[in-house]
Amino acid sequence: MFDYKLLAALGAVVEQGGFERAAQMLGLSQSAVSQRIKLLETRVGQPVLVRSTPPAPTELGRRLLNHVQQVRLLEGELSELLPSLDEGGLPDRLRIALSADSLATWWAPALADFCAAQALLLDLLLEDQDVGLKRMRAGEVAACLCAVERPVAGARSLPLGRMRYRALASPAFIARHFPDGVTPRRLAQAPAIVFGPDDRLQHRYLAALGQEGGFLHHLCPSSEGFVRLIENGIGWGLVPEIQVREACAAGRLRELLTDRPIDVPLYWHYWRNGGSLLATLTGHLQRRAGEWLLPD
Amino acid sequence: MFDYKLLAALGAVVEQGGFERAAQMLGLSQSAVSQRIKLLETRVGQPVLVRSTPPAPTELGRRLLNHVQQVRLLEGELSELLPSLDEGGLPDRLRIALSADSLATWWAPALADFCAAQALLLDLLLEDQDVGLKRMRAGEVAACLCAVERPVAGARSLPLGRMRYRALASPAFIARHFPDGVTPRRLAQAPAIVFGPDDRLQHRYLAALGQEGGFLHHLCPSSEGFVRLIENGIGWGLVPEIQVREACAAGRLRELLTDRPIDVPLYWHYWRNGGSLLATLTGHLQRRAGEWLLPD
Repeated sequence: MFDYKLLAALGAVVEQGGFERAAQMLGLSQSAVSQRIKLLETRVGQPVLVRSTPPAPTELGRRLLNHVQQVRLLEGELSELLPSLDEGGLPDRLRIALSADSLATWWAPALADFCAAQALLLDLLLEDQDVGLKRMRAGEVAACLCAVERPVAGARSLPLGRMRYRALASPAFIARHFPDGVTPRRLAQAPAIVFGPDDRLQHRYLAALGQEGGFLHHLCPSSEGFVRLIENGIGWGLVPEIQVREACAAGRLRELLTDRPIDVPLYWHYWRNGGSLLATLTGHLQRRAGEWLLPD
Repeated sequence: MFDYKLLAALGAVVEQGGFERAAQMLGLSQSAVSQRIKLLETRVGQPVLVRSTPPAPTELGRRLLNHVQQVRLLEGELSELLPSLDEGGLPDRLRIALSADSLATWWAPALADFCAAQALLLDLLLEDQDVGLKRMRAGEVAACLCAVERPVAGARSLPLGRMRYRALASPAFIARHFPDGVTPRRLAQAPAIVFGPDDRLQHRYLAALGQEGGFLHHLCPSSEGFVRLIENGIGWGLVPEIQVREACAAGRLRELLTDRPIDVPLYWHYWRNGGSLLATLTGHLQRRAGEWLLPD
């Protein structure tokens, strides 16, 4: 069998973003962590870690971490049946990748009861909904919420519903940039706000209006910051309807083109052999997500 | 002089997180970008890029990017004097690193007028306030807002004020975890919420109460998500006072220990020779930050 001490050291260095913190987390010296990584590399015959800042796993390192994640989930399963093997009754942890927009809106109310009832601790990772799956593929997470349907090998995907986005701006921004009304062409000339290089929602919206190509935009990788920039008239952007109901009702935000939403489907990806906690959480989301998301 | 085409290719690969996107951005083929990086490495005699996913600059690569950032700021300065050299009158862009908490609260209202008046586009990067300075050191940003006072070489730092944090939880969470009142010991046993591995605020708060060592916590790298988790009773955590005035007034959130805030100082770091736009922005922040931050 693999030596999981070595693999745990690799996981700690990647998760914690460095050797020093990994050593703290594992309760080891830094040189002990270093030695374990070197020993692992000697055994597998190639590097598992790129020594950048922060260190990144190589392709092989990634596969090993993927494997460790699945073994951990299986162990979680087993330790429920054999409570004496458990390390002191610590709460379970689940590492989950999701989009900032879900986290800023429906995720917390959907999970509230579940976390309390199961004494579950969440390690949340933010990933844009079009690319979150790479965290599953890399074996860094137990589950992932994203816009891509097709599961990675060993995992399943479950449609939870659709998140509706509307193109919004502040009344002052609309008055300044569209004195003669909003047209697709003028919209493509007004500064937009884009979440980050992986966010293509504004591009898709403009393309659907026949406006292909580049456009001026701010970059703002924060869901709340995104809405704040729009409210303050710094740009326009696509925002989840459920995040800004109040701001729209109060007139602080207005839809640019009447009733032209974009819907983004959300899929829950989880390991097939992920253990009963993950299965219970999956069932919980399947039952509850409809309270916030539109039917699929 | 340096060949800035090669350096621009390096910058694009790092900024865009890959060769393919860098090629799109530069309007080149992927192999042309690759060749430029290789040529740069031949000239400087060592690697400038670690070929990880995403690619990361080596120490030397970082220094070169730092240099490019400063040259760009200087060019921006010059192109104002010589508008004919400017590439088609595109708006200026400033790349700025700041904390999610500032972005979720006072940043947008503070910048609103400025962006409109200067036709400025913002590239915002999120970095925890204790570590944001590494983006300055790496030359990836024009300015940085963080909790560290000491500037990097070539830059200045300016105190803008203090952000006040309070330890908050929902009434339901308090009832569940502290039926006999909140004590430091019980607080250290209730699940906290921590922004990420770089966030030591909850640790410092507990340490100030005499509770050293580890504690149970969720990880949630989103400012709005952080507040949502607290409002839904999933954990307790330290939140900027200005972010939750309304939730506290409405009784959705309560301070755990009466009037025990933590203040975090915020410093604005900017390149000394960063050009007049950066200098104007610096003056603007110096005048306006006091509307949201406590005096230093």
